[in-house]
Amino acid sequence: MTLDASRRVVALVPAAGRGVRLGESTPKAFVPVGGSPMLARAVDGLIASGVVDRIVIMAPIEMIDAARQLLTAHAPAVGSLPVDVVAGGAERTDSVRAGMAAAPEATHFLVHDAARALTPPALIARVTAELTAGRHAVVPGIAVADTIKSVSAAGDVTGTPDRAGLRAIQTPQGFDAELLRAAYAVDLPVTDDAGLVEAFGATVRVIPGDPLAFKITDQLDLRLANALVAESAADEKAASAQVVPR
Amino acid sequence: MTLDASRRVVALVPAAGRGVRLGESTPKAFVPVGGSPMLARAVDGLIASGVVDRIVIMAPIEMIDAARQLLTAHAPAVGSLPVDVVAGGAERTDSVRAGMAAAPEATHFLVHDAARALTPPALIARVTAELTAGRHAVVPGIAVADTIKSVSAAGDVTGTPDRAGLRAIQTPQGFDAELLRAAYAVDLPVTDDAGLVEAFGATVRVIPGDPLAFKITDQLDLRLANALVAESAADEKAASAQVVPR
Repeated sequence: MTLDASRRVVALVPAAGRGVRLGESTPKAFVPVGGSPMLARAVDGLIASGVVDRIVIMAPIEMIDAARQLLTAHAPAVGSLPVDVVAGGAERTDSVRAGMAAAPEATHFLVHDAARALTPPALIARVTAELTAGRHAVVPGIAVADTIKSVSAAGDVTGTPDRAGLRAIQTPQGFDAELLRAAYAVDLPVTDDAGLVEAFGATVRVIPGDPLAFKITDQLDLRLANALVAESAADEKAASAQVVPR
Repeated sequence: MTLDASRRVVALVPAAGRGVRLGESTPKAFVPVGGSPMLARAVDGLIASGVVDRIVIMAPIEMIDAARQLLTAHAPAVGSLPVDVVAGGAERTDSVRAGMAAAPEATHFLVHDAARALTPPALIARVTAELTAGRHAVVPGIAVADTIKSVSAAGDVTGTPDRAGLRAIQTPQGFDAELLRAAYAVDLPVTDDAGLVEAFGATVRVIPGDPLAFKITDQLDLRLANALVAESAADEKAASAQVVPR
């Protein structure tokens, strides 16, 4: 898949999260969008990008078999490249660590949320192209629609950062593999992988994201995703394509 | 509408924005959602809240008549309280200033985006209840789904504020009328009304917002809004209610 024989791009997909805000009983990655589980859609998108050499999914240990079956049933492109399911951990960082350990051959990692199930393959390709061009850490980001404010524990506003300088960060987040491994060797409390790399002192580049790479967090997001897939299915009667058109 | 005879809650609805990101030729507030212009839906929601005494809409000067006709045609509840359309300004702050000038009797202002067309009336009532309880500035906010990062002009990450302490701010934003007038008397470059009040030195309280109060900014938001209205219409065959159920 890669022109450079020594390059190995491995996508890590944490799929062990509970998705409390979605209010479903199954882990979030297993919740269907338009009839196909988010995890299967995310994996299909990674494969369709044409830039990934291998995918490692980190699932709850009791759902490893279910994840494998789900991919066979719902991700038509699986089989065109190695896709492995390994046991994730209690925290997202534990899962990413487990995924990295399962892919010692990686030269680059893409860490991708299964909940960004409709991410356009072209965005995945753009992040990877920046890595190929020599950047060590690349994340997609879009302008924030709402004014963002920081609040105190009591609920009073403590600040309003200039919105023009803010980005809502999406995935896949792309990293030089050695950098991500080194950053994870230091245990810091951050909410995203790029944050770990920043805390480690590396420069993270933000490239333009895509509205379709939105994260399915609550029921409203799920309704949007279902509506988009339904529109897409209506648009392209031949339902061979697995992603929503741009 | 209010129990206290001296209290006058006036909702100001800026409707002069072009809505560049939506890619429509008409001003954003005039774009239909499920067949009814955003402005009409926003006005209906304000009326349905039962806490507003008067509504002042600030429209592009050449569209004042169009706005009045639109309300007559699409906002069934208009007529139950005074709704006026005045000329807005080039900037959002100019429009708010024009709206305040048109309502010297106001004791409280609610500044509400027409683009938050599906805002539940209950949220509008909650903001107003906080004002009634004596707070001077109240805004709704929800947790941010994505990690937010600040970026440099070059596109490099400069910081990742702790997501737990951030809120995406919605409307209506509620203010003691004297405070908002005083804050607007000082001309400061901020993106939202609460920011002006903060810069003025007042404390702004954030209360829980509602996912349905999302701002219709791009085509994806418009598709979500249309899908929600369609679901709502299918749910309640009697289409008398004008807002999406919670």
